[in-house]
Amino acid sequence: MRGTVIHGVKDIRFEEVPEPKIEKPADVIIRLAVSCVCGSDLWAYRGVQPVSEPTPMGHEYCGYVEEVGSAVKSVKAGQFVVGSFAMSDNTCPHCLFGYQSSCQQREWVSRAQAPYMRVAHADGTLVSTSDKPSKEMLPSLLAASDVLGTWWFAADAANVKKGSTVLVVGDGAVGLLGVLSAKQMGADRIIVMSRHEARQKLAREFGATDIVTERGDAGIARIKELTKGVGADSTLECVGTPEAMQQAIQSTRPGGFVSYVGVPHAVELDGQQLFFSHVHLHGGPAPVRRYLSTLLELIEKEEIQPGKVFDLELPLEQVAQGYAAMDERRAIKALLHP
Amino acid sequence: MRGTVIHGVKDIRFEEVPEPKIEKPADVIIRLAVSCVCGSDLWAYRGVQPVSEPTPMGHEYCGYVEEVGSAVKSVKAGQFVVGSFAMSDNTCPHCLFGYQSSCQQREWVSRAQAPYMRVAHADGTLVSTSDKPSKEMLPSLLAASDVLGTWWFAADAANVKKGSTVLVVGDGAVGLLGVLSAKQMGADRIIVMSRHEARQKLAREFGATDIVTERGDAGIARIKELTKGVGADSTLECVGTPEAMQQAIQSTRPGGFVSYVGVPHAVELDGQQLFFSHVHLHGGPAPVRRYLSTLLELIEKEEIQPGKVFDLELPLEQVAQGYAAMDERRAIKALLHP
Repeated sequence: MRGTVIHGVKDIRFEEVPEPKIEKPADVIIRLAVSCVCGSDLWAYRGVQPVSEPTPMGHEYCGYVEEVGSAVKSVKAGQFVVGSFAMSDNTCPHCLFGYQSSCQQREWVSRAQAPYMRVAHADGTLVSTSDKPSKEMLPSLLAASDVLGTWWFAADAANVKKGSTVLVVGDGAVGLLGVLSAKQMGADRIIVMSRHEARQKLAREFGATDIVTERGDAGIARIKELTKGVGADSTLECVGTPEAMQQAIQSTRPGGFVSYVGVPHAVELDGQQLFFSHVHLHGGPAPVRRYLSTLLELIEKEEIQPGKVFDLELPLEQVAQGYAAMDERRAIKALLHP
Repeated sequence: MRGTVIHGVKDIRFEEVPEPKIEKPADVIIRLAVSCVCGSDLWAYRGVQPVSEPTPMGHEYCGYVEEVGSAVKSVKAGQFVVGSFAMSDNTCPHCLFGYQSSCQQREWVSRAQAPYMRVAHADGTLVSTSDKPSKEMLPSLLAASDVLGTWWFAADAANVKKGSTVLVVGDGAVGLLGVLSAKQMGADRIIVMSRHEARQKLAREFGATDIVTERGDAGIARIKELTKGVGADSTLECVGTPEAMQQAIQSTRPGGFVSYVGVPHAVELDGQQLFFSHVHLHGGPAPVRRYLSTLLELIEKEEIQPGKVFDLELPLEQVAQGYAAMDERRAIKALLHP
């Protein structure tokens, strides 16, 4: 079959790759219904994260169970399933504490921009939908696999509650779904930092109450002004850059919460600054599996439509165009049809 | 009067200083019953924190109200009071959220190793005891002013709960009271890192269940071994050095909590390491005022005896000997009698 492989900076190829096979009794093979490009895929695409050899890409997926390993009990061939980018047994101590993305047997998904893929620890990793989903529902179910689940965690880790004042740093797909998550969790006020008109519009549609276009010190001053000098209760940082992290920490009130869910690049935190900021800090690779059943239920009941973050659809074989469009900020997030 | 002033590295003098006066209507003057030397005073004593000019010292205090400003309503002359090292109005938004040490009107105490001192924002800062305390109770009441309150916050910020496995990094006075706080909050297992026999003994008396003498990677491996490979639920870090912070982060389980209450010195946190550690991080100057009423009640009912951390008593005029004894680790904490 053919799948997506990165060969170097801005060099995405849709080329011949080995077909996935059951390797262990707990594996399943799924046929992807849809896949997509993640903002974090751009780190390698842009060369920020070096690519030393041709590397398969993709970690967001949903689709139909095609083949089942001998030890798998909870899913059957033909079922529609969604899983997280972190495959986990869901039985080890870390999983039981709700940190499945730190599972003692964790494996990362890395070949999902393809027609078929192998899922390890299938019983722990996959959640099936109650029915075979409609075509319209596929983008939202795919969003649950990473981007929505990640922001659900971000809002949870930032202690978003009924009545909270929430700041979202970042207007990518993840930032926008952060707005949706915060809204669902009852936030009263949701401030989004964005300079991009289409994204501002979607942010408002998802529940944003204020848009801040300033950055750096001016951005911090503006947040303080909007919150009567106090700062945000909860700040969701995704960008993963030193500037975004500084923006987040300095815009949050003492005792407030900062969550960060994008892999930080070149971020160094000064212990003394963090100490006197008095904020709570929590983040990491989102344990999407913790929320997956809840999210699938909300989507199947049509209470949330996270699939709206996809604003470009392409046949899978044109995956390279999806990367380019996101890199150039012409698209928020590209959906791929195998 | 004479008070304590640092002139440079290891140069503590008890010398003539101005008598404190009511400067603002919200001030009171107190006559100190006892004072003491703090582990954090040693940063300046050892030259880690530069001393550019002669600087008055001391921030832990309790004693009798001597004189009252015209706006003060909650305390009267003659009452016995305890306050935190951070003077706060207890009415601003940060105070109302429980972060009095980030009060919008915060002032730091800095002249408490003396017979008399001025307390600003007296209504917000001071809590009075129900009775005139016995001589025996004074060390415990003094401990509430900083070291006990600080560790109460540390245990709270590290989410210590009934049944928790708690790690305490540091066996100074603060570390030892961290053990006491964790025990009071219902921790099941309390592991203390200590290489000092007298401190190990007191740690066990306060509730420690395990003592770890290894440090660095060997220390981390030992904690993992003691927790069946999982790591601690809650880790209390006080030392404030890069090594102690690394020890804390790496010994805590994914989803666990690390609190830090000593001002960090030269601590830089790597964003990516912190991200994948999956820990919660919270700390800062402890909002001791949040806990002060509770702590005074526990002490007056003799349910806790935090005064046990004082293992050296000196007349105030011999304050320099207190610094030297703590610096050389001959004493855990020195009590000073004015």
